[in-house]
Amino acid sequence: MIKLYELAGKNNVIFSPYCWRVRLALLHKELDFLSVKTAFTDIQKISDSKFKTVPVIHDGNVNMNDSFKIIEYLEANYPEKPSLFSSNEGRVLSIFIEAWANSLHSDIARMAIADIHSHLQDQDKPYFRRTRESFFGKKLEDVQQENYDTAKESFLSKLSVLEKYLTKTEFIGGASPLYPDFIVFGSLQWLFTTSHTFEINELSSNCKNWFLKISQIYVIQG
Amino acid sequence: MIKLYELAGKNNVIFSPYCWRVRLALLHKELDFLSVKTAFTDIQKISDSKFKTVPVIHDGNVNMNDSFKIIEYLEANYPEKPSLFSSNEGRVLSIFIEAWANSLHSDIARMAIADIHSHLQDQDKPYFRRTRESFFGKKLEDVQQENYDTAKESFLSKLSVLEKYLTKTEFIGGASPLYPDFIVFGSLQWLFTTSHTFEINELSSNCKNWFLKISQIYVIQG
Repeated sequence: MIKLYELAGKNNVIFSPYCWRVRLALLHKELDFLSVKTAFTDIQKISDSKFKTVPVIHDGNVNMNDSFKIIEYLEANYPEKPSLFSSNEGRVLSIFIEAWANSLHSDIARMAIADIHSHLQDQDKPYFRRTRESFFGKKLEDVQQENYDTAKESFLSKLSVLEKYLTKTEFIGGASPLYPDFIVFGSLQWLFTTSHTFEINELSSNCKNWFLKISQIYVIQG
Repeated sequence: MIKLYELAGKNNVIFSPYCWRVRLALLHKELDFLSVKTAFTDIQKISDSKFKTVPVIHDGNVNMNDSFKIIEYLEANYPEKPSLFSSNEGRVLSIFIEAWANSLHSDIARMAIADIHSHLQDQDKPYFRRTRESFFGKKLEDVQQENYDTAKESFLSKLSVLEKYLTKTEFIGGASPLYPDFIVFGSLQWLFTTSHTFEINELSSNCKNWFLKISQIYVIQG
């Protein structure tokens, strides 16, 4: 069975956008997998220190990380299972959506960096605080407090593109969900699983309805 | 033969993003067409005042406007010609790219609204100034001067998504150009055909190279 190493916080909360993307892809492809909840500071223990980031999958003799590489591996090796791309254009749509969705991440980080810290396993907290405070050059609590409003405005402004798009299509992949849906879902789920402040009702209506639909299909029933 | 009514300025300059999109789509589909250069204030004369915007096409008994509707008509009615979508996912990719590219338009307008005015046919100038100054609540020259720097920053920041995307694919549609390429090309061509200030060398390298390739294939040789 496939093993999926996923970043996990306290109480096994899964919050990494990249891990959520792969998790939903495995559910969509109806592949059984065993989730291995992993702390930041335990990633080095996977596969003899081969990887610096999760998600990682082990599938037989294959070990790999990098969410998009994993998706391409799954598509190539399980062609009889439901497709994540559906066509060449579904693949390039995924690549564009990934670049677009990842542009939300700097906003999400500034909206929730202290809240993310609060959800971590205790063993990860010093590592996370040290590396992120070095990156931002100030305390996590100050980053979040000083930037929350402008980051939220930037985040919602970027989402207006998705809002308009979803007036014309039910899912990001078209008539049914494809990997592009899981990419954006992962990014938003990162925010919703960690933020103490931001609520789903602050999303515009098409984005909110789409998010709830994906959640219903893959997370609640899945 | 198909007639394409396109917005034209002085010296027959074609600058409307939506007209460029349809023009490149017709070239891509290798459909002969007759371009009818049209002033803003002459749009009402097309098809017995049926339309308020161009592009408009006349194809036999069919008259229609709205760039995306025209593209869907061409795909449905000329299936033996090179496809603009290639697949269902190519169609939804086009819809997402359209929403994304149109989000550049408010930036482009603020970077070039007075320059656009300077390129218009004389008969259009009073109409354009009156309607746009009413929208912005100030003189066109002031809109452009006061907003140029922040609008350019916002524009280039949005294009960073495309820059990243183009590290992974040669064209927006994948290995060869599709309608998504023509959508973004139309938006950028609107800026390049009108701005007295912004230069192609200000684009990041992948965006610039991609733009020049599309230009080479469809505009220079086309």
